[in-house]
Amino acid sequence: MSKEKEFVKEITNIEEDFAQWYTDIVRKAELADYTDTKGCIAIKPYGYAIWENIQKYTDEKFKQIGVKNVYLPLLIPEHLLNKEKEHVEGFAPEVAWVTEGGQQVLEEKLCIRPTSETMFSTLYSKWLTSWRDLPMLYNQWCNVFRWEKETRPFLRSREFLWQEGHTIHETEEEAKEFTLKILDIYADVIENLLAIPVLKGVKTPNEKFAGAEATYTVESLMHDGRALQAGTSHYFGQNFTKNFDIQFQDREGKQRYAYQTSWGISTRLIGGVIMAHGDNRGLKLPPRVAPIQAVIIPVAMQKEGVLEKATELFQTLKKTYRMELDSRDNYTPGYKFNDWEMRGVPVRIELGPRDIENGVCMVVRRDTGEKLSISLTEIEEKLGSLLEEIQNNMYQECLQIKEKRTTTATTMEEFAKNLDENQGYVKAMWCGDEACEDKIKEMTGAHSRCIPFEQEHISDTCVCCGKPAKTMVTWGRQY
Amino acid sequence: MSKEKEFVKEITNIEEDFAQWYTDIVRKAELADYTDTKGCIAIKPYGYAIWENIQKYTDEKFKQIGVKNVYLPLLIPEHLLNKEKEHVEGFAPEVAWVTEGGQQVLEEKLCIRPTSETMFSTLYSKWLTSWRDLPMLYNQWCNVFRWEKETRPFLRSREFLWQEGHTIHETEEEAKEFTLKILDIYADVIENLLAIPVLKGVKTPNEKFAGAEATYTVESLMHDGRALQAGTSHYFGQNFTKNFDIQFQDREGKQRYAYQTSWGISTRLIGGVIMAHGDNRGLKLPPRVAPIQAVIIPVAMQKEGVLEKATELFQTLKKTYRMELDSRDNYTPGYKFNDWEMRGVPVRIELGPRDIENGVCMVVRRDTGEKLSISLTEIEEKLGSLLEEIQNNMYQECLQIKEKRTTTATTMEEFAKNLDENQGYVKAMWCGDEACEDKIKEMTGAHSRCIPFEQEHISDTCVCCGKPAKTMVTWGRQY
Repeated sequence: MSKEKEFVKEITNIEEDFAQWYTDIVRKAELADYTDTKGCIAIKPYGYAIWENIQKYTDEKFKQIGVKNVYLPLLIPEHLLNKEKEHVEGFAPEVAWVTEGGQQVLEEKLCIRPTSETMFSTLYSKWLTSWRDLPMLYNQWCNVFRWEKETRPFLRSREFLWQEGHTIHETEEEAKEFTLKILDIYADVIENLLAIPVLKGVKTPNEKFAGAEATYTVESLMHDGRALQAGTSHYFGQNFTKNFDIQFQDREGKQRYAYQTSWGISTRLIGGVIMAHGDNRGLKLPPRVAPIQAVIIPVAMQKEGVLEKATELFQTLKKTYRMELDSRDNYTPGYKFNDWEMRGVPVRIELGPRDIENGVCMVVRRDTGEKLSISLTEIEEKLGSLLEEIQNNMYQECLQIKEKRTTTATTMEEFAKNLDENQGYVKAMWCGDEACEDKIKEMTGAHSRCIPFEQEHISDTCVCCGKPAKTMVTWGRQY
Repeated sequence: MSKEKEFVKEITNIEEDFAQWYTDIVRKAELADYTDTKGCIAIKPYGYAIWENIQKYTDEKFKQIGVKNVYLPLLIPEHLLNKEKEHVEGFAPEVAWVTEGGQQVLEEKLCIRPTSETMFSTLYSKWLTSWRDLPMLYNQWCNVFRWEKETRPFLRSREFLWQEGHTIHETEEEAKEFTLKILDIYADVIENLLAIPVLKGVKTPNEKFAGAEATYTVESLMHDGRALQAGTSHYFGQNFTKNFDIQFQDREGKQRYAYQTSWGISTRLIGGVIMAHGDNRGLKLPPRVAPIQAVIIPVAMQKEGVLEKATELFQTLKKTYRMELDSRDNYTPGYKFNDWEMRGVPVRIELGPRDIENGVCMVVRRDTGEKLSISLTEIEEKLGSLLEEIQNNMYQECLQIKEKRTTTATTMEEFAKNLDENQGYVKAMWCGDEACEDKIKEMTGAHSRCIPFEQEHISDTCVCCGKPAKTMVTWGRQY
């Protein structure tokens, strides 16, 4: 037992030090590791497999609505980045610059893309001729780089993987509609694949993307009550299309500027999955995104027939599910139970000599710890519905946390008190003045998450200045 | 007709100027475009979809033999690149350097990975403890950057996409075996997916990868008789594991260095597909890798029922095949025929009022131009076997070209004559001396492609110096 106790001790208690708990999970569950390149991580197989599942699910949804994948250059010449004023102001401080290549100093330096609006816009200007070419719905899965000062694996890395979609449209209406269609896909991914409920809304002008006319967001709440911006979809209007001369001949033969959008989700979502679902036993993965949905652990493996039966079961189940058979002979079953719990595998199947005699296996749920004895003839069928039940239960648990952690406030006292006692979201009315937003941030550390699509009337006046309120805003401390 | 003639004229004749023909295809078929970043292309949807098909096929094969995907940093600190002497000498001249980040000049510059041996090795050194951890079979799909002086879309771009696999093993034998297992996968991809026959062998010491003990290669022959190195798999021995201290405790409890491999294929293969199969009508894509396997073109689309019937057929066929329906109303059917031929779609299905009356459609093969009238009730089933037939036929055509373009030489006069008259491969004996290899290159412009696994006895003496020959080498001018 001593080895197992020691093993559990390696993960910091989630209530005591959430940040350290997070780092422990990332490293012990072998999701990622630090590297010699400061601020950049290595995503290990188990972490990358989560990303592959996110990619596969999302990419299919994109393709269903006509999005096509492309690949544009990593490096952007300085003059392109400088073309849109707000955009360059937003990104220039955090880019990495290539100044030497092929053993020569470059005449013009090149930045590693922090995002690719400028590159897409330049090419759209070249590719677009007629209204018949529209819409152009392009996306790329790639790496981007932002010179962050403080980094945390997955949540804030200098380099990260993401998809960035960039589209151009004939009309304002169509572009706006498309921006929201993408937001729906993001909500689908996060709720149905990652089992994390989202809050949908539009960012305040203060929090919107550099150069965008409107930024729509899906926000999610982590275990500790902090908010994570999980995905954003931006409507640019004609801001870039005018700067980059993205014109087309319209149906009447006149030259017009197109309307543009961009949108992205990233490997940050892996951080979201860890922080939304994990507990003191470690990672807890929703079955639909879990690289391993169930692990078979033979008990008393040295006994005749046990490993054979376990292997047979593994061969059967892996046709339908993502399975692992842990036949390591240098660890006890108890160690393995802990190990796979820590790695967040949704279901553990124990199989020992007595189980085999009785024609059953012992099935243990990672989410509730519940143990079920299931007949070996039924396990193939029942595992599917069990995994779905776990998926739904994990979503419901997160939803309850979200509801419990959402409060309303009509005064700043109430606002601060709720936030300190409860963390989470605070819903409060806002006059629309940036000064109030800044003041709230200063007083409480909470950023406006968004102006939710689902509005409520909390009070008549702004929670900060007391002037007439324009809208309800949801606030929260953030990652 | 004038529009159509003009359209065909836009592609340079393949026999007159192969290089220009190639560039025309890349741009007219909308596979890629030039960008404002010198030497870097934008891969457009049609080109990227080919890459996605290559990725999907290859990644599955990798996973079947236990390879796991990871993602490592884009930027490599200078001191890491410098750790292996031969390697840095090979790559340092062609790297791009990041020297500024976050508005500061960096203390140590970072190179954009030209390949990731050094990064993988550093991490393997950290991750490897015991023989139980071995083998580690990791791969990443990513971008790399090499500061090429002369570039050509897909064939030689400063930035390109690839997969780079890096593995470490317990024994020399296992590592070597794995290197060859990967070479078999590459041959499978190129022959069975891309319909291009390959020549398998080992590179001469002169042509091997910087830092490798042996480089295995799959070589392919293009339409113009030039060779393209299509994929390479390197065996490193303990070269990097000693430099990077990649040690493990072996079964006897002793510390030992692991044995290493690396291997890659890239978007260069898209260039290979263009150049191996294309003709004067444009691109010609093998059905298994074609983003669009068949296109339906309604004829006399304005006639009642034609578009409806074409749409119905499209809906049926797209359940099984990758289909396109060209219902553009601003082009004639003739223009569309040319357009889709130029884009290399393997099968065109014409559907007009008379066809509908007769319950048939007209099916035209891109590879042979052959026209077939196929009953609408049978087309769903027959299209599959037709696509397979086209795939096989395209492979056979390439194979014939390869055989026709492969000659033997026992003297340098014969060597030079064959190469000039025939291009292609020249098989000739070699003494093993680098000086002869250099001389042949100088005299004929041909590089040694490889020492083929399938050896033949052409003569007793080296084609160049006349001394006793050690081995048969296949030579050819290259891309």
